Amino acid sequence: MIPLDGTTELNVAQHGTRACRLAKMAALGLPVPEGVVLSAADVSKIAETGEVPQVPAHLLKGLLSLRASPLNPDWGGPTAILNIGISDSTLPDVGEDAAYILYRRFIQSFATNVAGLEAEDFDSDLPDGAERIARCKASYQFETDEDFPQAPEAQLRACILHMARAWNRPSARILRQAKGAPEDAGFALVIQRMALGIGRGVSGAGAAQMVDEATGAARLWGRYLPQSQGQDAVIGARAAMGVEALPEAVQAALLKAGEVLAKGFGDAYQVEFTVQDGRLWLLDCSPARRSSVAALRINVDLAEAGVISKADAILRTEPQALGDHLHPQIAEHSERDILASGLSASPGAASGRVAFTPEAAMTMAAQGQAAILVRVETGADDIRGIHAAQGVLTLRGGMTSHAAVIARGLGVPCIVGAGELRLEAEVLVCPDGRRLKAGAQITVDGTSGQVLAGSAEMTQPNLGGPFKTLMGWADEVRELQVRANADTPTDARLAQRFGVDGIGLCRTEHMFFAPERVQVMREMILAPDAVARKAALDLLMPMQKADFVELFEIMRGQPVTIRLLDPPLHEFMPVDEAGMAALAQAMSMSVRQVARRAEELSEVNPMLGKRGVRVGVTTPEIYEMQARAIFEAAAEVRAITGEAVVPEIMIPLVSANREVELIKARIEAVATEGVAYKLGVMVETPRAALRAGDLAESSAFLSFGTNDLTQMTYGLSRDDAGRFMREYVQQGVYPEDPFLSLDVEGVGELLLIAAQRGRAANPALVLGMCGEHGGDPASVRFCKVAGFDYVSCSPYRVPIARLAAAQASLLAAKAG
Amino acid sequence: MIPLDGTTELNVAQHGTRACRLAKMAALGLPVPEGVVLSAADVSKIAETGEVPQVPAHLLKGLLSLRASPLNPDWGGPTAILNIGISDSTLPDVGEDAAYILYRRFIQSFATNVAGLEAEDFDSDLPDGAERIARCKASYQFETDEDFPQAPEAQLRACILHMARAWNRPSARILRQAKGAPEDAGFALVIQRMALGIGRGVSGAGAAQMVDEATGAARLWGRYLPQSQGQDAVIGARAAMGVEALPEAVQAALLKAGEVLAKGFGDAYQVEFTVQDGRLWLLDCSPARRSSVAALRINVDLAEAGVISKADAILRTEPQALGDHLHPQIAEHSERDILASGLSASPGAASGRVAFTPEAAMTMAAQGQAAILVRVETGADDIRGIHAAQGVLTLRGGMTSHAAVIARGLGVPCIVGAGELRLEAEVLVCPDGRRLKAGAQITVDGTSGQVLAGSAEMTQPNLGGPFKTLMGWADEVRELQVRANADTPTDARLAQRFGVDGIGLCRTEHMFFAPERVQVMREMILAPDAVARKAALDLLMPMQKADFVELFEIMRGQPVTIRLLDPPLHEFMPVDEAGMAALAQAMSMSVRQVARRAEELSEVNPMLGKRGVRVGVTTPEIYEMQARAIFEAAAEVRAITGEAVVPEIMIPLVSANREVELIKARIEAVATEGVAYKLGVMVETPRAALRAGDLAESSAFLSFGTNDLTQMTYGLSRDDAGRFMREYVQQGVYPEDPFLSLDVEGVGELLLIAAQRGRAANPALVLGMCGEHGGDPASVRFCKVAGFDYVSCSPYRVPIARLAAAQASLLAAKAG
Repeated sequence: MIPLDGTTELNVAQHGTRACRLAKMAALGLPVPEGVVLSAADVSKIAETGEVPQVPAHLLKGLLSLRASPLNPDWGGPTAILNIGISDSTLPDVGEDAAYILYRRFIQSFATNVAGLEAEDFDSDLPDGAERIARCKASYQFETDEDFPQAPEAQLRACILHMARAWNRPSARILRQAKGAPEDAGFALVIQRMALGIGRGVSGAGAAQMVDEATGAARLWGRYLPQSQGQDAVIGARAAMGVEALPEAVQAALLKAGEVLAKGFGDAYQVEFTVQDGRLWLLDCSPARRSSVAALRINVDLAEAGVISKADAILRTEPQALGDHLHPQIAEHSERDILASGLSASPGAASGRVAFTPEAAMTMAAQGQAAILVRVETGADDIRGIHAAQGVLTLRGGMTSHAAVIARGLGVPCIVGAGELRLEAEVLVCPDGRRLKAGAQITVDGTSGQVLAGSAEMTQPNLGGPFKTLMGWADEVRELQVRANADTPTDARLAQRFGVDGIGLCRTEHMFFAPERVQVMREMILAPDAVARKAALDLLMPMQKADFVELFEIMRGQPVTIRLLDPPLHEFMPVDEAGMAALAQAMSMSVRQVARRAEELSEVNPMLGKRGVRVGVTTPEIYEMQARAIFEAAAEVRAITGEAVVPEIMIPLVSANREVELIKARIEAVATEGVAYKLGVMVETPRAALRAGDLAESSAFLSFGTNDLTQMTYGLSRDDAGRFMREYVQQGVYPEDPFLSLDVEGVGELLLIAAQRGRAANPALVLGMCGEHGGDPASVRFCKVAGFDYVSCSPYRVPIARLAAAQASLLAAKAG
Repeated sequence: MIPLDGTTELNVAQHGTRACRLAKMAALGLPVPEGVVLSAADVSKIAETGEVPQVPAHLLKGLLSLRASPLNPDWGGPTAILNIGISDSTLPDVGEDAAYILYRRFIQSFATNVAGLEAEDFDSDLPDGAERIARCKASYQFETDEDFPQAPEAQLRACILHMARAWNRPSARILRQAKGAPEDAGFALVIQRMALGIGRGVSGAGAAQMVDEATGAARLWGRYLPQSQGQDAVIGARAAMGVEALPEAVQAALLKAGEVLAKGFGDAYQVEFTVQDGRLWLLDCSPARRSSVAALRINVDLAEAGVISKADAILRTEPQALGDHLHPQIAEHSERDILASGLSASPGAASGRVAFTPEAAMTMAAQGQAAILVRVETGADDIRGIHAAQGVLTLRGGMTSHAAVIARGLGVPCIVGAGELRLEAEVLVCPDGRRLKAGAQITVDGTSGQVLAGSAEMTQPNLGGPFKTLMGWADEVRELQVRANADTPTDARLAQRFGVDGIGLCRTEHMFFAPERVQVMREMILAPDAVARKAALDLLMPMQKADFVELFEIMRGQPVTIRLLDPPLHEFMPVDEAGMAALAQAMSMSVRQVARRAEELSEVNPMLGKRGVRVGVTTPEIYEMQARAIFEAAAEVRAITGEAVVPEIMIPLVSANREVELIKARIEAVATEGVAYKLGVMVETPRAALRAGDLAESSAFLSFGTNDLTQMTYGLSRDDAGRFMREYVQQGVYPEDPFLSLDVEGVGELLLIAAQRGRAANPALVLGMCGEHGGDPASVRFCKVAGFDYVSCSPYRVPIARLAAAQASLLAAKAG
C-alpha cells in the first residue's frame, strides 16, 4: 500500500493509470487529497483470499473514496464508491443537511454496489434527513437481514473486497477482453480521503480545462455544479453552470493548476475537481478536450511556451485534421436548422442553392450563383458538376464513395450517405416532411455532417497564426518536396497559397475539354489524313502554349511537371446527337459516319486501352505539338521574367522502355534551342515498376501514379470498386480502401522495387509520387522511407502532405 | 591451297561452308570431283595484290569449275564459272558437238562475268559447232580488243581474280551487310575438276533427296535434266524429268549416297549431282527439303535408324509445326481454284458455306451444315460464331488479331488479312470479279493461306505413326504435366485424344450460357432476396452437378481443376429487348426495371470490376452452390466407377489472401464427407503474385492465369490492344505480342517471384500455368525453368505443349 503523495515512483503496470496520474499531480504540488494505492497484485490477492490488508489508521478518521485504477484506461473497472466511513456516529462536520445527504448517498451506493440490492428500494419522497436515513437502513436490513455496517473499517473492507471481486465477473471480463485486455489483466485500487463537495460555503464539483475546446485559446473553460460530488456536474443530474461562476480565487487556483499540469504533463489538461468550503481539490486529470483547430493551436502554444519541442508540436498534430483549417466553417453562434445528417466526407461548410444535376450546378456556377450538388450518388459524369458546386450532398455512399473521394480532393465540403433524405422527382424530402425543390437555399456542414436549411454564418479559414507557425516549423524539418496536382492557373494559384514546392502533375487533357477546344480536338481525331490532323493541331498549339505560359508565370521558376495527353481519344468524342451533328457539319461528314467513328474508337476496358503513351506512339504529332507548346512557353516566360523555366515532361502509361525511347526522340527533335527540360515517366503499370531499371536509363525522373498502379496491381477499377469496397473493408478483405491509403504490401512493394532498380541504374534519378495517395499521411511516410524526392497531391491536401513529410523526417531521425 | 579430299580438316571460318561440306563428303567416301580450296585470307590477298597463286599442275590438265564458298551461306557470293580450261586446243573428248557446247558456254560465261560484256552479244541462231565458236570469239575480240584467252592457266587466273574482286563490289557489300555480314566478311573459293554432264552416254545434272518432301517417307525424289550442267535442272531451262528416269545403277548410287550422308551429317540430305557417261558425281549437299509433316517423320526415322538420338528427334521438331498434324489438310493432288490469299493464321483446311454473321454460322451448324465464317474482322461478339464454324476468313487483321488468336485456340482453320477480297452488302467480291453470296461453298486452307472455290479433297490427320512415336518419346522425358483448358465434355474428350494429363482449367461460366440456364441465372441475379436467390441456385445446382459428373467420368481419375464463377454478373444479363421482356415477365417486373437493373450492373472497366472472387465474397451462395455440385458429382462418380475423384477447386481474380480464407471457410462448410479435394488460387493480378507467400499458406496450388496477369501487368486490355498491337510489334515497342508469347521480363518476373515465395511458404505447393501461353513453346520452357508442375492450354495445343515440355527438360539437362 503506497501513499499517493508523489514521494514514491509508481508504475502503470502495477498501479494503474489513475494512481500514477494522482501521484504525479501530488509530486507537482497540486492539491490532491491524501490517499494510498493497492497494487494490482494486492487486489488480485484480495479477490483470491478474501483477506483485505489494513489501511493506515489516520486515513480511517475521515470519509474515503475508493476508485479503480486500471492498468489500461480502456479496460474499465468497477464503479467508484464515495463517502466510505460515514455512519450514525461519524457524520462529518459539514452541517446536518449536508451530512445526511452524504450518508444517504453512501448507503445507496453501498447497497446497490456492494450488497447488490435494487436502487429503487432506496428511492423515497422524503427529504434528506434523519428520517430518510432510518428508512434506508431499514430497507437495507429488510433486504439483507443484516444491519447496515457502522464501523468505517468494516465498510471499507467490504467495499474493497466487492471491487476486487467485481473485476472478475464474466460480463466485466468479456467487455475488457473485447477491448484487447489479456486474460489475466488486473487493476489497482485508489483509496483517498474525500474532498466533500457538499457542505458549507462554496462547495461543489466539476471539470475544467484551461483552453477553449473549439479554438484552443487560453481561457478557463468547463462546468461546475454547486453542492455536488464526483461526476455530478458532468453527468448532468442538475443543470451545471460555467466555471466562471466560481469565486475568483478558485478560478485562479484552477488556472494555476492548469499551468502546472501543462508543464508537468507536457500538454493542455483538463481536471476533475471538487471545491470544499472554498478550497480546491483535484481528483483526476486527462488531456484537455479539443477540436482539430484547437489541437493545432495548443501544440503551437505549448511549443512557443517551451513546454514541448517544435518537433513534438509537429508530431502531435494530426495531418488529416488540417483540412478543418482550410475551409470556411459555420460560425459557432450560428443557428442550425438541421434538415438531416450524414457522413462528414469532406470538411468545411458551404451554402448554396440545390442543384439536382451536374448541368444545373454548372449553369448556376456560370451565373455566379453558389450551387450545392444533391445526388443519390455520383459517378464519373458528375465530376464537372462537383467542380462547379460549392458543396456536395449524396444520399448514399460511404467515406470512400466517388463523391467523397472527389470532393476531398477538390476541397469541396461534402456530406455522403444522408439516408434520412429521399429524392422524389426533383424534390428533396426531409425526414420532418419539408420538401426542397431545385434552387432552395441549404447549407452543408462537411465537418459535422449536418444539412441545414438556409444560409449559415461562416467563419473564414485562417491560414495565418498558429497554422502558419506550425507549417513553417514543418517546412524546416521536412526533406520530401511537396508538389501539387494542378491543371489550371486557378489550381496553381491555390497551390501557391498552400505553400507548394512546384507542380508534380499537370494533366494537359483538361485543357482540351473547354468547348472551343474540344471541337478542334475532335476534328484532329477525325482528320482523314496527316495534313488535316496537322491543321487541327496547329490550331490547338497556341492555346496549349498560352496555358503553359500562365502556369510557368505563376510557378515562378519552381518545377512544373507536365503530363502529356493521357486519356483515350474517344473521351473527346461527343456522346449526344447535337454534338455529333455539329461535328459532322464541321467535318463535312454524315452524322452516321461520325457516330460510326465514335463507335470504332470506343473500348471495352478504357482503363486498359489505347491511351497515354500508346496514343503518343501511334499518333506522335499530338505529343510533338504539346512538347513544342511547352518549349515555346518556357522560352517566352524566360524572356519576360528573366528567370529560367525548366519544364519536366512526363510520359504516361508506359509499359516498355522502347516507348520512352520513341517519344524521347520525337521530343528531342522539336526541342527549342536553349530551353532546358527534363523527361520522365509516370509509372502506372506494374510492368513499368518492374522495369524501372531500364526506364531510369532513359529518364530524368520517375513519378508513381499510384491511382492507376493500384488499379492494375489489384486488377480493380476505381470506378467500379465502389459497389463492393465498403463491404470488402467491413469484412476485412482489404484493411483499408487501397485508393485512400497506399497498399504497402502490394503496390508499396512495386514502389520499393522500382525505386531500388531505378536508382541503381541512374543514381541521379528523381523519384516522386503523384495521385491521391500523395495527400495521405501514411503514404507520405512510406515515400520518405522509400527514399523518394517528392510527393504531389491536390492543392487542398498540400498542407497535409507538408506536415506528414515533416513527421516522416522526424520519425526517421528518431528511428536512427 | 588445301585439297578437298577429306584428308585435311577444314573450318568454316576460313574455308566457308561449301568447301567444308565437300571435304566432309569426300571423307565419307562419296564421289566428289577432285579439287582445292583457296581460303578467305588467300582470296582477300588476291583481291588486294592481283596476284593469283599457282594451282596444282595436274588439275590444269582437265576442265575446272570455280565456285564461291562463303563463310556464312546467307552472305551470297559471285556466280560460279564452269568449264574453265577449254580452248581451241583443249576440247575435251566428249564428242565434237558436246565439246563445242561446253566451249560456247564457257566463252559466254567468261565474257559476261569476267569481261563484263552483254549476254546478247553472244546470242546466235547458229547451231553449236565450230562456226558458232568462231562467231563468239570474234564478238569477244570486237568488244574487248583482245583475243579470247586460250591458255587454261590464264583463263583460271582471270576467273579467280574476277571473283575475288567481285566480292567487294558496293552492291554485293550492301546486300550481304543487310543480311548481317560484318564489314570485313570474306569468302573462300572452291576449284574443282568438272564432272561433265554434257557428252557421251548417260550424262546430265540434277538434284535429289532420299525422302519425300511432303510426307518424309523414304523414297528417291528429285529432278534430272539430261545433257545439262550445274543448276540447269533446277533453273528449269528445259523441262526436267524425275530422277526415276535415271538408270537403276545411278539411282542405286544416289540412294546409297543418301544413306551415307544421313549417317555422316545426321539428317536427311539433298544433293546436287552430275552424271558423266553413267557415273555419278556429287557437287554439293544440303538438308533435304521437307514440309512440317515430313520433318517429324524424318526425325523419327533417323532416330529409329540409330542415326540420331531420340532426344535429338525431340529437339529438332518444331512444336508449333505439330498443328499441321492435327487438322485435315487439302490432298496434294486436289485441284486448287484460288479465289484469294491471306495470312495462314490457324493451320488445317475446311470446306463449308459462307456465313457473313456469327448468327448465320450458328444456324448452319444447328442444321448440320459446315459453315465458313467470313468477316471484315472479328470481336468478342463473334466467338460463338467462330465456335460454330468449320473455318474462319477475315479480310483484315494480322497473326495476333482476335480471329487468329481465337481460331488457333479452338483449332479452327483460319485465314486473316485477305485484303484482296472485298465485302459489299453481303457479297464477297474476289479480285477476279467473282461474287460469292451467303451460302456459297468455299474452302479455307489455313496452312497455305489460300481461299479456294468449292470443296477440296482432304487428307485426314494421322495421330498414329511417327506422330505417336515422337509424342511417346516426348512423354518419356518431359517433367512438366500438360493439362487442357476444357469447359465441356466435348473439350475433355478432345483433350484425352491429344494425350492430356488432366484438366487445368474448367471455366464454369460457360455452363451457364446455355439458353435454359441463362434464364435461371438471370433470375438468380435479379432475385429480390436471399430466399429467391436460393431458389434459383437450387435449380442450377443439378445442372452444374451433371456437367461435373460427365467431366469426371471422361477424365477417369485425372486431376480436374474447376474454376469457380469468374465473369461479372452483368455478362449474363440480356442485351436485347426480347430478352429483357422475357426476363421481366419471369420476374414479374417491368421491362424498365429490368433494364435499369442491367444498367446498374454494367461497368466502366469490366476487366477490373466486380467479378471472380469479388462476386464470391459478396454473394457467397453462388460459390457454395458450385462447391456442392462439385462434391456431389465427385461422390457420385466414385460410387459408379469405384475410382476416387479429387477435384481441384480454383478461386479466380484473388488480390488478397483474406478472400481465399473467406471462400475456403464457405467451401469447407459445404464439403461432402469423404470427398477429398484441393483448393487453390488462380493468380491473375500482380498483387496475388507479389503476395504468393500468403496465398500459399491457404492454398494447395497456384495456377497462373497469364492472360489476365499480362493484361494487368501491362495495363493492357486484350480486347482493345488489337488496335495498336501490330504497330507496336512492328515498331519494336514490344518484341512480340505478350498475349502470344509470355513477357519474360515483366510478367515472367512476377511468376518467378510468386513461385519462389509460394514454395518458400509451402514446399508442397503445386504450381501451374493456364491461359493461352500454356500452348506457347517458349512460355512452356519458361515454366520448366521456373519449376512449375504443369501447364494447361487449349486441347489443340496439348501436343505442342507436350513436345515443348520435353524439349525444356532436355535443354535443362544439357544446361546442367
